[in-house]
Amino acid sequence: MNALTPTLTAPTVTSGPLPASRKIWRAGTRHPDVRVPMREISVHPTAGEPPVTVYDSSGPYTDEAVATDIAAGLARTRRDWTLAAGDVEDYEGRAVRPEDNGVTSDAKRVPAFPVAHAPLRAKDGKAVTQLAYARAGIVTPEMEFVAIRENLGREQAKAQLERDGHPFSATIPDFITPEWVRDEVASGRAIIPANINHPELEPMAIGRNFLVKINANIGNSAVTSSMAEEVEKMVWSIRWGADTVMDLSTGRNIHDIREWIIRNAPVPIGTVPLYQALEKVDGIAENLTWEVYRDTLIEQAEQGVDYFTIHAGVRLRHIPLTVERVTGIVSRGGSIMAKWCLHHHEESFLYEHFEEICDICRMYDVSFSLGDGLRPGSIADANDKAQFAELETLGELTQIAWGKDCQVMIEGPGHVPMHKIKENVDLQMKVCGEAPFYTLGPLVTDIAPGYDHITSGIGAAMIGWFGTAMLCYVTPKEHLGLPDRDDVKIGVITYKIAAHAADLAKGHPASQLRDDALSRARFEFRWEDQFNLSLDPETARSLHDETLPKEAHKTAHFCSMCGPKFCSMKISHDIRAEAQKEGMEEMARKYRAGGDLYMPANAAGEAAE
Amino acid sequence: MNALTPTLTAPTVTSGPLPASRKIWRAGTRHPDVRVPMREISVHPTAGEPPVTVYDSSGPYTDEAVATDIAAGLARTRRDWTLAAGDVEDYEGRAVRPEDNGVTSDAKRVPAFPVAHAPLRAKDGKAVTQLAYARAGIVTPEMEFVAIRENLGREQAKAQLERDGHPFSATIPDFITPEWVRDEVASGRAIIPANINHPELEPMAIGRNFLVKINANIGNSAVTSSMAEEVEKMVWSIRWGADTVMDLSTGRNIHDIREWIIRNAPVPIGTVPLYQALEKVDGIAENLTWEVYRDTLIEQAEQGVDYFTIHAGVRLRHIPLTVERVTGIVSRGGSIMAKWCLHHHEESFLYEHFEEICDICRMYDVSFSLGDGLRPGSIADANDKAQFAELETLGELTQIAWGKDCQVMIEGPGHVPMHKIKENVDLQMKVCGEAPFYTLGPLVTDIAPGYDHITSGIGAAMIGWFGTAMLCYVTPKEHLGLPDRDDVKIGVITYKIAAHAADLAKGHPASQLRDDALSRARFEFRWEDQFNLSLDPETARSLHDETLPKEAHKTAHFCSMCGPKFCSMKISHDIRAEAQKEGMEEMARKYRAGGDLYMPANAAGEAAE
Repeated sequence: MNALTPTLTAPTVTSGPLPASRKIWRAGTRHPDVRVPMREISVHPTAGEPPVTVYDSSGPYTDEAVATDIAAGLARTRRDWTLAAGDVEDYEGRAVRPEDNGVTSDAKRVPAFPVAHAPLRAKDGKAVTQLAYARAGIVTPEMEFVAIRENLGREQAKAQLERDGHPFSATIPDFITPEWVRDEVASGRAIIPANINHPELEPMAIGRNFLVKINANIGNSAVTSSMAEEVEKMVWSIRWGADTVMDLSTGRNIHDIREWIIRNAPVPIGTVPLYQALEKVDGIAENLTWEVYRDTLIEQAEQGVDYFTIHAGVRLRHIPLTVERVTGIVSRGGSIMAKWCLHHHEESFLYEHFEEICDICRMYDVSFSLGDGLRPGSIADANDKAQFAELETLGELTQIAWGKDCQVMIEGPGHVPMHKIKENVDLQMKVCGEAPFYTLGPLVTDIAPGYDHITSGIGAAMIGWFGTAMLCYVTPKEHLGLPDRDDVKIGVITYKIAAHAADLAKGHPASQLRDDALSRARFEFRWEDQFNLSLDPETARSLHDETLPKEAHKTAHFCSMCGPKFCSMKISHDIRAEAQKEGMEEMARKYRAGGDLYMPANAAGEAAE
Repeated sequence: MNALTPTLTAPTVTSGPLPASRKIWRAGTRHPDVRVPMREISVHPTAGEPPVTVYDSSGPYTDEAVATDIAAGLARTRRDWTLAAGDVEDYEGRAVRPEDNGVTSDAKRVPAFPVAHAPLRAKDGKAVTQLAYARAGIVTPEMEFVAIRENLGREQAKAQLERDGHPFSATIPDFITPEWVRDEVASGRAIIPANINHPELEPMAIGRNFLVKINANIGNSAVTSSMAEEVEKMVWSIRWGADTVMDLSTGRNIHDIREWIIRNAPVPIGTVPLYQALEKVDGIAENLTWEVYRDTLIEQAEQGVDYFTIHAGVRLRHIPLTVERVTGIVSRGGSIMAKWCLHHHEESFLYEHFEEICDICRMYDVSFSLGDGLRPGSIADANDKAQFAELETLGELTQIAWGKDCQVMIEGPGHVPMHKIKENVDLQMKVCGEAPFYTLGPLVTDIAPGYDHITSGIGAAMIGWFGTAMLCYVTPKEHLGLPDRDDVKIGVITYKIAAHAADLAKGHPASQLRDDALSRARFEFRWEDQFNLSLDPETARSLHDETLPKEAHKTAHFCSMCGPKFCSMKISHDIRAEAQKEGMEEMARKYRAGGDLYMPANAAGEAAE
């Protein structure tokens, strides 16, 4: 980069397939260069079952056939798709400035990413957003990619499973076509966050008629963490199933850490540009200006950030509504903007300049994640006037963004007791024209710091069922400290549970296949299959092995929970064996045919009835 | 005991108060010898707030003023109450036989509990159940104890909080009187499990108009665990909030381990007598007889077991309904009984002899926990014919038990996707005449072994909200192995979260006080208070200290999650300070009074609206 460039040590990341898994690819038909990755989990031959195919957001890191190189970045496959549309041009982007990385001494300087790419932008007058294309009736390669990805197992399911579930107002198709994806995007009910400068991306969709997605937050803070840790956290979080990753870095080296992350990210990367803008003015909120903020948006859009959290809904008039709250304003972005508004006694510059922000986003297809700066930070503040007043403003801004062909989702709370969760979804849909909802938890109680992945996992599962399209994870460190790699994993697995539980309850056609495969493995004592089909095979195996570590116990018809004599599943098998001998099918047939209840001739003691 | 008695080493258990906590007592008025324990958590003087009083199921182990001795057992306070009623007699109980402890070599023999107590039973013709007394219009000391215990904070709450919540069909009073408790018990909507031979008990109630309770399962298996571990698990689980404990031991020493547990348990102890009966017939289900089972009931009733899980709902006619299930029969008791029925082609001896079982329970006031032997063990099997056919039988048995003045609750599933949870509660209430529901989870997906405390915590919170009275915990080891001490703690804390979230959503009058106190502590950076008010102060503190261990950081106005510049709570305080300077109250007043939205004169850019 310049004379100060330190020696480069590219970070190492976790790679290699998950147990019993291999990467498979499904090709597009409209766009034959679309290749959609999935993970195939094989089961033991005794099962007599096909492998189980699952959604795979982990990128090339779990593909044995690909040698990834963090210092080179991932393959830039999407670039050809973007160029083929003919609506973009490359140009000499904004030069990186020292303040982009904060005031950083040489010793603490993160190396610049070794490869520079000239950014793309829309040609003058062109809109390059997925929304613009969808409205024009165009099925982009991204849309076909998403259709194949979401369809996962639906053909198989159709033969095996009846539709089940209670989807509220969601309308979930039996089978997903690229045209249906286009229509969902055109309506604003779904977004495909895909900056044209993030060609490493494997596209995905966020919308309530799609599978429920989860986001993992990473990012250093002024207090701790480094570039290598953050890149590994990104790779690690998608390994366990994060669908998007937000880089919420706030400390030094913010530009360079982001570059390393994006160049190696197969998932959409979101940011809160305000954080970097604040670093540029030395952390003094009142010194923020539209110019500094605007410059940051362009800097990040050129890097390839896929969605921006913009807290444009925090207006001067809303601030008095927070005065009597138990926990005030708990969004970092929201509190910064509130401080700015109050100090200047002026309307938020984000609100004032929202149309210009849209113009920038439109040029690169950066999606909006309209931030809920006034979300409740405690049960006491849930669903209050401040929160819902901001939501009204977010509804207004959604219309403005849609008017500019920009993709939009809406952020939601926070801390909400169970009985107040559904109101959040219903109101958001109404006020924001069905733009996808993206919530943080919510936490259903405040009394368990250290376990807020669980307090929020409860709320997340419920709000996902009710119609939230993406769930932002919460780790055990919430309220207490910066999550490390272990915390990230626990957060991701907890939210995969919540999202999957929501998919089941909504009745996504193929979602139960994995549950059924795992349950069959459990019933048949295929321990290895049970581990491999689980969300976290490593943990399942290690908890099993704590008491019964021997290999022989991997085929045992019991575990240490109940021991052999009391294993209900073992006894169930004895029952079935006995039933076959005695003609259980015959019994069952009689029972079903007879209308009356089956009772063998030698049954004693009818008196008790 | 005899020549074989091994040297006694009484186990040590965890004792001492939780951080910043002390035991306080509230005395009865009707029964002055009733002293109800509560835990008072003090907060920092700068808070200017009274201490927070919380429900306390931990017994004398957390009372600095009491020196507990495991080899002596807890004080037998309730014995006087039972004797005072004049309806009981003591007698020479059943002698302990070698088979009560299984076939145990001397080396593996657990020492007998050092103190022997003659059992009590009802005098001929008397019913000594809480239900019988309630129906007779009598307010027992147990009922007054429960009223005081449940009232916790309601007077304080009345002044502070508006009623909130959505209780479905629950009717939760502003204030709980002993008479109201009596009426709930008389109606069968609540039970007070309290064997007259468990005088060490601090009474508690289970019913949907009371606080939601949780149960922790402990118990050795044939494969692992010892007496000392199980006693510690009992003490450990109530330390973190378990309201009842089930001893599900199935291996050797089953009688003696139970004796050690009960004599040291201030909470109701439940068992599944079938497990011990099966051990007495060497684990061969088909060799079970009514006589062996009956003998086991008496043995355990004399020891003081407070509730029995009885799988009398598994009838011969139900078994064919399980044939096509994905996971067959997953209840240990259910599968044992099914095997017996099928082998003999006879109706279940539990069903046949249910009235006699009631006669035994009535004599000691052992409550029924009517077991759901056919609960679903996978998402695929949820709410199926087998499950609901058994529920109908449980409804029948409830009426029989009530006819005998016996207290009854009903066990429920298991594995249920979110959209099918409410049906379970609604149907149970209807079919079982509103007898309390007691569910295991339910797990809302099958795909996360190793995290089933979380998959089930989601279902537990929801089913608690819908009306389940007690939630049986699930630990991370579910499906994988026998839980150890750490697993027990994680299971209990997860279920305290679920139960508390349910209480909040139902609108229990005082339930939000603790959330609010903790949230205020959080907002005011009273870190120690935040830790101390949490369900698990140790974990909260240690997660905080992982990144910021210094004592100075316990007063810092930030944590490592966001760092000082980005701490929204810190900024919120700046905002409030600024607002005071600028007259925020005045702004707020104008806003509220004006009807129209507040907009200062110097606000620019109205155009953007």
